[in-house]
Amino acid sequence: MSFYCPRLCIVGSGLIGGSLALALKKAGRVGEVVGAGRNEATLQRAQELGIIDRHVTDIAEAARGADIVVLSVPLLAMRQVFEQLAPVLRPGMVLTDVGSAKTSVIEDARAVLGQKSRQFVPGHPIAGTEKSGPDAAFAGLFEGRKVILTPLSDNDAGDVARIRAMWRIAGAEVEGMTALHHDHVLAATSHLPHLLAFALVESLARMEERHEVFRYAAGGFRDFTRIAASDPTMWRDIALANAAEIKGMLKRYQKDLDHLYALLDQGDGEALHALFNRARQAREGLKL
Amino acid sequence: MSFYCPRLCIVGSGLIGGSLALALKKAGRVGEVVGAGRNEATLQRAQELGIIDRHVTDIAEAARGADIVVLSVPLLAMRQVFEQLAPVLRPGMVLTDVGSAKTSVIEDARAVLGQKSRQFVPGHPIAGTEKSGPDAAFAGLFEGRKVILTPLSDNDAGDVARIRAMWRIAGAEVEGMTALHHDHVLAATSHLPHLLAFALVESLARMEERHEVFRYAAGGFRDFTRIAASDPTMWRDIALANAAEIKGMLKRYQKDLDHLYALLDQGDGEALHALFNRARQAREGLKL
Repeated sequence: MSFYCPRLCIVGSGLIGGSLALALKKAGRVGEVVGAGRNEATLQRAQELGIIDRHVTDIAEAARGADIVVLSVPLLAMRQVFEQLAPVLRPGMVLTDVGSAKTSVIEDARAVLGQKSRQFVPGHPIAGTEKSGPDAAFAGLFEGRKVILTPLSDNDAGDVARIRAMWRIAGAEVEGMTALHHDHVLAATSHLPHLLAFALVESLARMEERHEVFRYAAGGFRDFTRIAASDPTMWRDIALANAAEIKGMLKRYQKDLDHLYALLDQGDGEALHALFNRARQAREGLKL
Repeated sequence: MSFYCPRLCIVGSGLIGGSLALALKKAGRVGEVVGAGRNEATLQRAQELGIIDRHVTDIAEAARGADIVVLSVPLLAMRQVFEQLAPVLRPGMVLTDVGSAKTSVIEDARAVLGQKSRQFVPGHPIAGTEKSGPDAAFAGLFEGRKVILTPLSDNDAGDVARIRAMWRIAGAEVEGMTALHHDHVLAATSHLPHLLAFALVESLARMEERHEVFRYAAGGFRDFTRIAASDPTMWRDIALANAAEIKGMLKRYQKDLDHLYALLDQGDGEALHALFNRARQAREGLKL
Protein backbone atom coordinates (compact mmCIF):
# COMPACT_ATOMS: atom_id res chain seq x y z
CA MET A 1 0.00 0.00 0.00
CA SER A 2 1.32 3.41 -0.93
CA PHE A 3 -0.20 5.19 2.05
CA TYR A 4 1.74 8.12 3.44
CA CYS A 5 0.33 11.01 5.43
CA PRO A 6 2.63 14.07 5.62
CA ARG A 7 0.64 15.68 8.41
CA LEU A 8 -1.85 13.88 10.62
CA CYS A 9 -4.00 15.70 13.14
CA ILE A 10 -5.46 13.68 16.01
CA VAL A 11 -8.26 15.38 17.91
CA GLY A 12 -8.30 13.57 21.27
CA SER A 13 -5.05 11.74 21.97
CA GLY A 14 -6.41 8.97 24.18
CA LEU A 15 -6.35 5.20 23.77
CA ILE A 16 -7.71 5.00 20.21
CA GLY A 17 -6.30 8.14 18.62
CA GLY A 18 -2.99 7.64 20.41
CA SER A 19 -2.66 4.02 19.36
CA LEU A 20 -3.37 4.93 15.73
CA ALA A 21 -0.67 7.62 15.78
CA LEU A 22 1.82 5.17 17.32
CA ALA A 23 1.01 2.47 14.73
CA LEU A 24 1.48 4.86 11.79
CA LYS A 25 4.70 6.23 13.26
CA LYS A 26 6.05 2.73 13.84
CA ALA A 27 5.29 1.88 10.21
CA GLY A 28 6.98 5.08 9.03
CA ARG A 29 3.82 6.13 7.21
CA VAL A 30 3.28 9.52 8.77
CA GLY A 31 5.26 12.76 8.75
CA GLU A 32 4.19 15.00 11.58
CA VAL A 33 1.50 14.15 14.12
CA VAL A 34 -0.28 17.14 15.65
CA GLY A 35 -2.41 16.56 18.73
CA ALA A 36 -5.44 18.68 19.51
CA GLY A 37 -7.93 18.63 22.33
CA ARG A 38 -9.37 20.43 25.29
CA ASN A 39 -7.17 18.91 27.96
CA GLU A 40 -3.71 20.47 27.97
CA ALA A 41 -2.35 17.94 30.51
CA THR A 42 -3.46 14.96 28.38
CA LEU A 43 -1.82 16.51 25.32
CA GLN A 44 1.39 17.16 27.26
CA ARG A 45 1.42 13.56 28.38
CA ALA A 46 0.76 12.29 24.83
CA GLN A 47 3.69 14.37 23.61
CA GLU A 48 5.97 13.07 26.39
CA LEU A 49 5.06 9.55 25.35
CA GLY A 50 6.00 10.30 21.72
CA ILE A 51 2.44 9.78 20.50
CA ILE A 52 2.23 13.29 19.04
CA ASP A 53 5.04 15.56 17.87
CA ARG A 54 3.41 18.79 19.00
CA HIS A 55 0.08 19.92 20.34
CA VAL A 56 -2.28 22.84 19.97
CA THR A 57 -5.37 23.26 22.10
CA ASP A 58 -7.10 25.26 19.35
CA ILE A 59 -8.56 22.57 17.09
CA ALA A 60 -8.77 24.75 13.94
CA GLU A 61 -5.15 25.77 14.43
CA ALA A 62 -4.06 22.16 14.93
CA ALA A 63 -5.87 20.93 11.83
CA ARG A 64 -4.68 23.71 9.52
CA GLY A 65 -2.61 22.12 6.74
CA ALA A 66 -3.25 18.55 7.90
CA ASP A 67 -3.87 15.86 5.26
CA ILE A 68 -5.99 13.68 7.51
CA VAL A 69 -7.82 14.70 10.69
CA VAL A 70 -8.94 11.89 13.00
CA LEU A 71 -11.78 12.77 15.39
CA SER A 72 -11.16 10.63 18.43
CA VAL A 73 -13.41 12.29 20.99
CA PRO A 74 -16.58 11.13 22.79
CA LEU A 75 -19.61 11.10 20.46
CA LEU A 76 -21.37 14.12 21.93
CA ALA A 77 -18.23 16.22 21.37
CA MET A 78 -18.13 15.44 17.62
CA ARG A 79 -20.47 18.23 16.50
CA GLN A 80 -18.42 20.90 18.21
CA VAL A 81 -15.23 19.56 16.66
CA PHE A 82 -16.83 19.70 13.20
CA GLU A 83 -17.78 23.32 13.93
CA GLN A 84 -14.21 24.15 14.80
CA LEU A 85 -12.84 22.32 11.76
CA ALA A 86 -15.27 23.87 9.24
CA PRO A 87 -13.29 27.09 8.62
CA VAL A 88 -10.01 25.23 7.90
CA LEU A 89 -11.47 22.32 5.88
CA ARG A 90 -9.65 22.88 2.60
CA PRO A 91 -10.09 20.64 -0.48
CA GLY A 92 -7.98 17.47 -0.27
CA MET A 93 -8.18 17.25 3.53
CA VAL A 94 -9.91 14.07 4.68
CA LEU A 95 -11.75 13.81 8.00
CA THR A 96 -12.49 10.53 9.72
CA ASP A 97 -13.65 9.50 13.18
CA VAL A 98 -13.52 6.52 15.52
CA GLY A 99 -16.94 6.84 17.15
CA SER A 100 -18.71 3.69 18.38
CA ALA A 101 -22.02 4.80 16.83
CA LYS A 102 -22.17 6.14 13.30
CA THR A 103 -25.60 7.60 12.49
CA SER A 104 -25.30 10.43 15.00
CA VAL A 105 -21.81 11.46 13.84
CA ILE A 106 -22.96 11.52 10.22
CA GLU A 107 -25.92 13.72 11.18
CA ASP A 108 -23.53 16.07 12.95
CA ALA A 109 -21.20 16.23 9.93
CA ARG A 110 -24.11 16.86 7.54
CA ALA A 111 -25.59 19.54 9.77
CA VAL A 112 -22.34 21.40 10.36
CA LEU A 113 -20.37 20.88 7.14
CA GLY A 114 -23.17 20.69 4.58
CA GLN A 115 -21.75 19.81 1.13
CA LYS A 116 -18.27 19.55 2.55
CA SER A 117 -19.33 16.61 4.70
CA ARG A 118 -18.38 14.49 1.67
CA GLN A 119 -14.80 14.93 2.91
CA PHE A 120 -15.75 12.99 6.05
CA VAL A 121 -15.30 9.19 5.96
CA PRO A 122 -16.99 7.71 9.07
CA GLY A 123 -15.16 4.82 10.76
CA HIS A 124 -15.17 2.66 13.87
CA PRO A 125 -12.26 0.50 15.02
CA ILE A 126 -13.62 -2.49 17.00
CA ALA A 127 -10.80 -2.38 19.48
CA GLY A 128 -10.13 -1.01 22.89
CA THR A 129 -9.70 -2.06 26.46
CA GLU A 130 -11.37 -0.90 29.64
CA LYS A 131 -8.44 1.49 30.01
CA SER A 132 -8.39 4.99 28.58
CA GLY A 133 -6.00 7.91 28.09
CA PRO A 134 -2.65 8.25 26.31
CA ASP A 135 -0.84 6.01 28.80
CA ALA A 136 -3.02 3.09 27.67
CA ALA A 137 -2.13 3.62 23.97
CA PHE A 138 0.10 1.14 22.13
CA ALA A 139 1.00 0.60 18.48
CA GLY A 140 -0.36 -2.97 18.33
CA LEU A 141 -3.92 -2.18 19.49
CA PHE A 142 -5.48 -2.64 16.04
CA GLU A 143 -3.43 -5.67 15.02
CA GLY A 144 -5.89 -8.25 13.67
CA ARG A 145 -8.87 -6.16 14.79
CA LYS A 146 -11.73 -5.08 12.58
CA VAL A 147 -12.36 -1.50 11.51
CA ILE A 148 -15.79 -0.77 10.06
CA LEU A 149 -16.11 2.12 7.62
CA THR A 150 -19.62 3.40 6.85
CA PRO A 151 -18.90 5.62 3.83
CA LEU A 152 -21.32 8.34 2.72
CA SER A 153 -22.94 8.06 -0.70
CA ASP A 154 -21.09 11.17 -1.84
CA ASN A 155 -17.67 10.32 -0.39
CA ASP A 156 -14.86 10.42 -2.92
CA ALA A 157 -13.70 6.84 -3.61
CA GLY A 158 -10.10 7.95 -3.27
CA ASP A 159 -10.73 9.40 0.21
CA VAL A 160 -12.37 6.16 1.36
CA ALA A 161 -9.44 4.16 -0.04
CA ARG A 162 -7.02 6.43 1.81
CA ILE A 163 -8.72 5.89 5.20
CA ARG A 164 -8.96 2.16 4.48
CA ALA A 165 -5.21 2.08 3.74
CA MET A 166 -4.46 3.97 6.95
CA TRP A 167 -6.21 1.36 9.08
CA ARG A 168 -4.60 -1.49 7.19
CA ILE A 169 -1.18 -0.02 7.90
CA ALA A 170 -2.19 -0.07 11.57
CA GLY A 171 -2.82 -3.83 11.25
CA ALA A 172 -6.61 -3.81 11.02
CA GLU A 173 -8.97 -5.70 8.75
CA VAL A 174 -11.24 -3.09 7.16
CA GLU A 175 -14.88 -3.75 6.26
CA GLY A 176 -17.74 -1.61 5.04
CA MET A 177 -21.45 -1.42 5.82
CA THR A 178 -24.18 1.18 6.18
CA ALA A 179 -24.25 3.35 9.27
CA LEU A 180 -27.71 2.11 10.23
CA HIS A 181 -26.66 -1.50 10.03
CA HIS A 182 -23.50 -0.76 12.00
CA ASP A 183 -25.51 0.84 14.80
CA HIS A 184 -27.91 -2.11 14.93
CA VAL A 185 -25.18 -4.76 15.09
CA LEU A 186 -23.00 -2.84 17.55
CA ALA A 187 -25.95 -2.22 19.88
CA ALA A 188 -26.18 -6.00 20.25
CA THR A 189 -22.54 -6.94 20.37
CA SER A 190 -21.02 -4.09 22.32
CA HIS A 191 -23.38 -1.39 23.60
CA LEU A 192 -25.92 -3.63 25.36
CA PRO A 193 -23.27 -5.84 27.05
CA HIS A 194 -21.45 -2.78 28.35
CA LEU A 195 -24.63 -1.25 29.74
CA LEU A 196 -25.63 -4.56 31.36
CA ALA A 197 -22.25 -4.81 33.06
CA PHE A 198 -22.39 -1.22 34.30
CA ALA A 199 -25.92 -1.83 35.62
CA LEU A 200 -24.96 -5.08 37.36
CA VAL A 201 -21.92 -3.68 39.14
CA GLU A 202 -23.84 -0.59 40.17
CA SER A 203 -26.69 -2.77 41.41
CA LEU A 204 -24.39 -4.94 43.53
CA ALA A 205 -22.62 -1.86 44.86
CA ARG A 206 -25.94 -0.78 46.37
CA MET A 207 -26.39 -4.06 48.28
CA GLU A 208 -26.04 -4.03 52.00
CA GLU A 209 -23.56 -6.89 51.70
CA ARG A 210 -21.56 -5.14 48.96
CA HIS A 211 -18.21 -5.54 50.68
CA GLU A 212 -18.68 -9.27 50.91
CA VAL A 213 -20.16 -9.50 47.46
CA PHE A 214 -17.07 -7.92 45.99
CA ARG A 215 -14.85 -9.93 48.31
CA TYR A 216 -16.12 -13.23 46.93
CA ALA A 217 -16.14 -12.07 43.33
CA ALA A 218 -14.52 -14.89 41.38
CA GLY A 219 -13.47 -15.64 37.83
CA GLY A 220 -16.75 -15.26 35.98
CA PHE A 221 -17.75 -12.11 37.76
CA ARG A 222 -14.35 -10.62 37.15
CA ASP A 223 -14.66 -11.20 33.39
CA PHE A 224 -18.24 -10.03 33.33
CA THR A 225 -17.54 -6.80 35.13
CA ARG A 226 -14.22 -5.82 33.60
CA ILE A 227 -16.03 -3.70 31.03
CA ALA A 228 -17.75 -1.79 33.84
CA ALA A 229 -14.38 -0.10 34.38
CA SER A 230 -14.71 1.61 30.98
CA ASP A 231 -14.81 5.41 30.59
CA PRO A 232 -18.19 6.74 31.82
CA THR A 233 -18.20 9.79 29.52
CA MET A 234 -17.53 7.74 26.42
CA TRP A 235 -20.30 5.32 27.38
CA ARG A 236 -22.81 8.00 28.30
CA ASP A 237 -22.29 9.42 24.82
CA ILE A 238 -22.67 6.04 23.14
CA ALA A 239 -25.82 5.36 25.16
CA LEU A 240 -27.35 8.67 24.06
CA ALA A 241 -26.09 8.59 20.47
CA ASN A 242 -27.38 5.08 19.78
CA ALA A 243 -30.30 5.12 22.23
CA ALA A 244 -32.93 3.91 19.75
CA GLU A 245 -31.05 0.73 18.81
CA ILE A 246 -29.90 0.07 22.37
CA LYS A 247 -33.44 0.44 23.68
CA GLY A 248 -34.64 -2.10 21.14
CA MET A 249 -32.00 -4.61 22.19
CA LEU A 250 -32.58 -3.93 25.89
CA LYS A 251 -36.34 -4.43 25.57
CA ARG A 252 -35.68 -7.75 23.83
CA TYR A 253 -33.29 -8.82 26.58
CA GLN A 254 -35.73 -7.79 29.31
CA LYS A 255 -38.30 -10.12 27.76
CA ASP A 256 -35.72 -12.90 27.76
CA LEU A 257 -35.05 -12.25 31.45
CA ASP A 258 -38.80 -12.45 32.16
CA HIS A 259 -38.71 -15.86 30.50
CA LEU A 260 -35.66 -16.89 32.52
CA TYR A 261 -37.39 -15.79 35.71
CA ALA A 262 -40.42 -17.89 34.82
CA LEU A 263 -38.23 -20.95 34.22
CA LEU A 264 -36.58 -20.50 37.63
CA ASP A 265 -39.99 -20.00 39.22
CA GLN A 266 -41.39 -23.15 37.64
CA GLY A 267 -38.21 -25.10 38.39
CA ASP A 268 -38.10 -26.10 34.73
CA GLY A 269 -34.71 -27.80 34.66
CA GLU A 270 -35.13 -29.14 31.14
CA ALA A 271 -35.78 -25.73 29.61
CA LEU A 272 -32.96 -24.14 31.65
CA HIS A 273 -30.53 -26.80 30.50
CA ALA A 274 -31.60 -26.32 26.87
CA LEU A 275 -31.17 -22.54 27.16
CA PHE A 276 -27.69 -22.81 28.72
CA ASN A 277 -26.71 -25.39 26.14
CA ARG A 278 -27.79 -23.19 23.22
CA ALA A 279 -25.73 -20.38 24.72
CA ARG A 280 -22.69 -22.59 25.12
CA GLN A 281 -22.94 -23.82 21.56
CA ALA A 282 -23.34 -20.30 20.19
CA ARG A 283 -20.41 -19.15 22.32
CA GLU A 284 -18.25 -21.97 21.02
CA GLY A 285 -19.29 -21.07 17.49
CA LEU A 286 -17.80 -17.62 18.13
CA LYS A 287 -14.28 -19.01 18.23
CA LEU A 288 -13.27 -16.02 20.30
CA MET B 1 -0.27 -28.23 59.17
CA SER B 2 -0.21 -31.89 59.98
CA PHE B 3 -2.80 -32.86 57.38
CA TYR B 4 -2.41 -36.28 55.81
CA CYS B 5 -5.15 -38.35 54.20
CA PRO B 6 -4.29 -42.03 53.74
CA ARG B 7 -7.21 -42.65 51.40
CA LEU B 8 -9.16 -39.97 49.58
CA CYS B 9 -12.24 -40.73 47.55
CA ILE B 10 -13.29 -38.21 44.89
CA VAL B 11 -16.83 -38.63 43.60
CA GLY B 12 -16.77 -36.87 40.22
CA SER B 13 -13.25 -36.39 38.90
CA GLY B 14 -13.80 -33.25 36.83
CA LEU B 15 -12.21 -29.82 37.07
CA ILE B 16 -12.73 -29.21 40.80
CA GLY B 17 -12.41 -32.72 42.24
CA GLY B 18 -9.53 -33.49 39.88
CA SER B 19 -7.63 -30.31 40.71
CA LEU B 20 -8.00 -30.97 44.45
CA ALA B 21 -6.60 -34.49 44.04
CA LEU B 22 -3.67 -33.15 41.99
CA ALA B 23 -2.91 -30.44 44.56
CA LEU B 24 -2.89 -32.91 47.49
CA LYS B 25 -0.74 -35.36 45.53
CA LYS B 26 1.72 -32.65 44.57
CA ALA B 27 2.01 -31.68 48.24
CA GLY B 28 2.52 -35.33 49.24
CA ARG B 29 -0.43 -35.12 51.64
CA VAL B 30 -2.50 -38.00 50.33
CA GLY B 31 -1.93 -41.74 50.12
CA GLU B 32 -4.29 -43.30 47.64
CA VAL B 33 -6.86 -41.40 45.56
CA VAL B 34 -9.87 -43.43 44.50
CA GLY B 35 -12.12 -41.99 41.81
CA ALA B 36 -15.83 -42.74 41.66
CA GLY B 37 -18.57 -41.64 39.32
CA ARG B 38 -21.09 -42.65 36.74
CA ASN B 39 -18.97 -42.01 33.68
CA GLU B 40 -16.43 -44.79 33.12
CA ALA B 41 -14.69 -42.90 30.27
CA THR B 42 -14.17 -39.81 32.45
CA LEU B 43 -12.75 -41.96 35.25
CA GLN B 44 -10.44 -43.74 32.80
CA ARG B 45 -9.22 -40.39 31.55
CA ALA B 46 -8.69 -39.08 35.10
CA GLN B 47 -6.64 -42.18 35.87
CA GLU B 48 -4.55 -41.76 32.69
CA LEU B 49 -3.84 -38.18 33.73
CA GLY B 50 -2.64 -39.35 37.16
CA ILE B 51 -5.45 -37.55 38.95
CA ILE B 52 -6.73 -40.74 40.59
CA ASP B 53 -4.85 -43.98 41.33
CA ARG B 54 -7.77 -46.29 40.63
CA HIS B 55 -11.45 -45.99 39.95
CA VAL B 56 -14.66 -47.77 40.85
CA THR B 57 -18.01 -46.89 39.29
CA ASP B 58 -19.85 -48.16 42.39
CA ILE B 59 -19.73 -45.20 44.76
CA ALA B 60 -20.20 -47.21 47.98
CA GLU B 61 -17.41 -49.52 46.92
CA ALA B 62 -15.13 -46.60 46.06
CA ALA B 63 -15.73 -44.87 49.39
CA ARG B 64 -15.31 -47.96 51.56
CA GLY B 65 -12.35 -47.39 53.86
CA ALA B 66 -11.74 -43.81 52.70
CA ASP B 67 -10.81 -41.17 55.28
CA ILE B 68 -12.28 -38.27 53.35
CA VAL B 69 -14.88 -38.40 50.60
CA VAL B 70 -15.24 -35.32 48.39
CA LEU B 71 -18.55 -34.95 46.57
CA SER B 72 -17.70 -33.12 43.38
CA VAL B 73 -20.84 -33.70 41.33
CA PRO B 74 -23.59 -31.35 40.06
CA LEU B 75 -25.91 -30.21 42.86
CA LEU B 76 -28.93 -32.29 41.85
CA ALA B 77 -26.80 -35.45 41.96
CA MET B 78 -25.74 -34.88 45.59
CA ARG B 79 -28.73 -36.58 47.22
CA GLN B 80 -28.22 -39.78 45.28
CA VAL B 81 -24.53 -39.83 46.19
CA PHE B 82 -25.43 -39.44 49.89
CA GLU B 83 -27.81 -42.40 49.49
CA GLN B 84 -25.04 -44.53 48.05
CA LEU B 85 -22.58 -43.45 50.74
CA ALA B 86 -24.92 -44.01 53.70
CA PRO B 87 -24.24 -47.77 54.09
CA VAL B 88 -20.43 -47.33 54.14
CA LEU B 89 -20.28 -44.16 56.25
CA ARG B 90 -18.24 -45.48 59.18
CA PRO B 91 -17.24 -43.33 62.20
CA GLY B 92 -14.16 -41.22 61.50
CA MET B 93 -14.94 -40.83 57.81
CA VAL B 94 -15.49 -37.17 56.82
CA LEU B 95 -17.62 -36.14 53.87
CA THR B 96 -17.35 -32.78 52.18
CA ASP B 97 -18.60 -31.28 48.94
CA VAL B 98 -17.75 -28.52 46.48
CA GLY B 99 -21.27 -27.44 45.49
CA SER B 100 -21.87 -23.81 44.46
CA ALA B 101 -25.02 -23.61 46.60
CA LYS B 102 -25.04 -24.87 50.16
CA THR B 103 -28.56 -24.93 51.62
CA SER B 104 -29.82 -27.57 49.22
CA VAL B 105 -26.87 -29.91 49.79
CA ILE B 106 -27.28 -29.64 53.55
CA GLU B 107 -30.98 -30.47 53.21
CA ASP B 108 -30.04 -33.51 51.15
CA ALA B 109 -27.47 -34.66 53.71
CA ARG B 110 -29.90 -34.17 56.61
CA ALA B 111 -32.69 -36.02 54.79
CA VAL B 112 -30.57 -38.98 53.72
CA LEU B 113 -28.01 -39.34 56.51
CA GLY B 114 -30.03 -38.17 59.52
CA GLN B 115 -27.78 -38.02 62.61
CA LYS B 116 -24.78 -39.08 60.58
CA SER B 117 -24.98 -35.89 58.55
CA ARG B 118 -22.78 -34.41 61.27
CA GLN B 119 -19.93 -36.16 59.46
CA PHE B 120 -20.59 -33.90 56.47
CA VAL B 121 -18.69 -30.57 56.32
CA PRO B 122 -20.20 -28.46 53.49
CA GLY B 123 -17.75 -26.46 51.40
CA HIS B 124 -17.46 -24.38 48.25
CA PRO B 125 -14.20 -23.46 46.53
CA ILE B 126 -14.64 -20.13 44.68
CA ALA B 127 -12.55 -21.25 41.76
CA GLY B 128 -13.07 -22.66 38.35
CA THR B 129 -12.92 -21.73 34.73
CA GLU B 130 -15.45 -22.05 31.93
CA LYS B 131 -13.77 -25.38 31.16
CA SER B 132 -14.83 -28.67 32.68
CA GLY B 133 -13.72 -32.31 32.88
CA PRO B 134 -10.49 -33.98 34.07
CA ASP B 135 -8.43 -32.53 31.21
CA ALA B 136 -9.08 -29.05 32.58
CA ALA B 137 -7.83 -30.00 36.07
CA PHE B 138 -4.53 -28.63 37.40
CA ALA B 139 -2.85 -28.59 40.81
CA GLY B 140 -2.69 -24.79 41.05
CA LEU B 141 -6.42 -24.10 40.55
CA PHE B 142 -7.04 -23.18 44.21
CA GLU B 143 -3.82 -21.21 44.73
CA GLY B 144 -4.83 -17.91 46.36
CA ARG B 145 -8.53 -18.66 45.88
CA LYS B 146 -11.15 -18.61 48.59
CA VAL B 147 -12.90 -21.70 49.91
CA ILE B 148 -16.03 -21.09 51.95
CA LEU B 149 -17.00 -23.69 54.55
CA THR B 150 -20.53 -23.55 55.95
CA PRO B 151 -20.21 -25.96 58.91
CA LEU B 152 -23.24 -27.58 60.52
CA SER B 153 -24.02 -26.80 64.14
CA ASP B 154 -23.32 -30.42 65.08
CA ASN B 155 -20.16 -30.89 63.03
CA ASP B 156 -17.19 -32.15 65.02
CA ALA B 157 -14.65 -29.31 65.35
CA GLY B 158 -11.88 -31.73 64.43
CA ASP B 159 -13.64 -32.70 61.19
CA VAL B 160 -14.06 -29.06 60.21
CA ALA B 161 -10.40 -28.39 60.99
CA ARG B 162 -9.41 -31.36 58.84
CA ILE B 163 -11.33 -30.08 55.79
CA ARG B 164 -9.98 -26.59 56.38
CA ALA B 165 -6.44 -27.99 56.46
CA MET B 166 -7.06 -29.94 53.25
CA TRP B 167 -7.99 -26.79 51.33
CA ARG B 168 -5.12 -24.83 52.81
CA ILE B 169 -2.72 -27.49 51.57
CA ALA B 170 -4.26 -26.95 48.14
CA GLY B 171 -3.32 -23.27 48.40
CA ALA B 172 -6.72 -21.82 49.29
CA GLU B 173 -7.71 -19.22 51.86
CA VAL B 174 -10.49 -20.81 53.92
CA GLU B 175 -13.37 -18.82 55.40
CA GLY B 176 -16.56 -19.71 57.20
CA MET B 177 -20.15 -18.44 57.09
CA THR B 178 -23.68 -19.76 57.33
CA ALA B 179 -25.13 -21.65 54.39
CA LEU B 180 -27.96 -19.14 54.00
CA HIS B 181 -25.59 -16.24 53.88
CA HIS B 182 -23.37 -18.08 51.40
CA ASP B 183 -26.28 -18.68 49.07
CA HIS B 184 -27.36 -15.04 49.26
CA VAL B 185 -23.90 -13.65 48.51
CA LEU B 186 -23.09 -16.18 45.78
CA ALA B 187 -26.41 -15.54 44.04
CA ALA B 188 -25.23 -11.96 43.57
CA THR B 189 -21.60 -12.51 42.79
CA SER B 190 -21.66 -15.64 40.70
CA HIS B 191 -25.06 -17.17 39.97
CA LEU B 192 -26.81 -14.08 38.59
CA PRO B 193 -23.86 -13.01 36.38
CA HIS B 194 -23.63 -16.49 34.89
CA LEU B 195 -27.34 -16.61 34.14
CA LEU B 196 -27.25 -13.13 32.61
CA ALA B 197 -24.40 -14.13 30.33
CA PHE B 198 -26.13 -17.35 29.26
CA ALA B 199 -29.31 -15.38 28.56
CA LEU B 200 -27.51 -12.69 26.56
CA VAL B 201 -25.59 -15.07 24.34
CA GLU B 202 -28.71 -17.15 23.75
CA SER B 203 -30.67 -13.99 22.97
CA LEU B 204 -28.12 -12.79 20.40
CA ALA B 205 -27.94 -16.27 18.88
CA ARG B 206 -31.62 -15.93 18.01
CA MET B 207 -31.11 -12.66 16.11
CA GLU B 208 -31.45 -12.68 12.36
CA GLU B 209 -28.04 -11.02 12.13
CA ARG B 210 -26.43 -13.50 14.54
CA HIS B 211 -23.54 -14.35 12.22
CA GLU B 212 -22.57 -10.72 11.95
CA VAL B 213 -23.21 -10.09 15.62
CA PHE B 214 -20.77 -12.80 16.55
CA ARG B 215 -18.40 -11.68 13.80
CA TYR B 216 -18.05 -8.20 15.28
CA ALA B 217 -17.86 -9.40 18.85
CA ALA B 218 -14.97 -7.54 20.41
CA GLY B 219 -13.09 -7.33 23.70
CA GLY B 220 -15.87 -6.52 26.11
CA PHE B 221 -18.32 -8.98 24.67
CA ARG B 222 -15.72 -11.72 24.69
CA ASP B 223 -15.08 -11.23 28.41
CA PHE B 224 -18.75 -10.91 29.15
CA THR B 225 -19.71 -14.09 27.36
CA ARG B 226 -16.81 -16.32 28.33
CA ILE B 227 -18.82 -17.64 31.25
CA ALA B 228 -21.63 -18.63 28.88
CA ALA B 229 -19.32 -21.48 27.81
CA SER B 230 -19.67 -23.05 31.28
CA ASP B 231 -21.14 -26.50 31.83
CA PRO B 232 -24.94 -26.40 31.27
CA THR B 233 -25.72 -29.28 33.65
CA MET B 234 -23.77 -27.75 36.51
CA TRP B 235 -25.52 -24.43 35.96
CA ARG B 236 -28.99 -25.90 35.58
CA ASP B 237 -28.44 -27.51 38.98
CA ILE B 238 -27.19 -24.30 40.57
CA ALA B 239 -30.15 -22.40 39.10
CA LEU B 240 -32.61 -24.88 40.58
CA ALA B 241 -30.82 -25.43 43.90
CA ASN B 242 -30.50 -21.72 44.66
CA ALA B 243 -33.60 -20.55 42.76
CA ALA B 244 -35.07 -18.52 45.61
CA GLU B 245 -31.98 -16.34 46.10
CA ILE B 246 -31.32 -16.05 42.37
CA LYS B 247 -34.90 -14.99 41.72
CA GLY B 248 -34.57 -12.27 44.35
CA MET B 249 -31.39 -10.95 42.74
CA LEU B 250 -32.82 -11.22 39.24
CA LYS B 251 -35.96 -9.30 40.19
CA ARG B 252 -33.81 -6.58 41.67
CA TYR B 253 -31.70 -6.42 38.50
CA GLN B 254 -34.79 -6.32 36.29
CA LYS B 255 -35.95 -3.24 38.19
CA ASP B 256 -32.54 -1.69 37.62
CA LEU B 257 -32.83 -2.39 33.90
CA ASP B 258 -36.26 -0.74 33.85
CA HIS B 259 -34.58 2.30 35.35
CA LEU B 260 -31.76 2.14 32.79
CA TYR B 261 -34.35 1.92 30.00
CA ALA B 262 -36.11 4.99 31.34
CA LEU B 263 -32.85 6.95 31.44
CA LEU B 264 -32.14 6.03 27.81
CA ASP B 265 -35.68 6.92 26.87
CA GLN B 266 -35.46 10.32 28.57
CA GLY B 267 -31.97 10.91 27.20
CA ASP B 268 -30.83 11.66 30.75
CA GLY B 269 -27.10 11.92 30.16
CA GLU B 270 -26.33 13.19 33.62
CA ALA B 271 -27.97 10.23 35.37
CA LEU B 272 -26.38 7.76 32.93
CA HIS B 273 -22.96 9.24 33.55
CA ALA B 274 -23.48 9.07 37.31
CA LEU B 275 -24.58 5.44 37.09
CA PHE B 276 -21.61 4.40 34.92
CA ASN B 277 -19.28 6.31 37.19
CA ARG B 278 -20.59 4.60 40.35
CA ALA B 279 -20.08 1.25 38.60
CA ARG B 280 -16.55 2.12 37.58
CA GLN B 281 -15.67 3.25 41.08
CA ALA B 282 -17.13 0.10 42.63
CA ARG B 283 -15.31 -2.03 40.05
CA GLU B 284 -12.04 -0.30 40.84
CA GLY B 285 -12.69 -0.86 44.54
CA LEU B 286 -12.78 -4.58 43.76
CA LYS B 287 -9.07 -4.63 42.97
CA LEU B 288 -9.68 -7.71 40.82
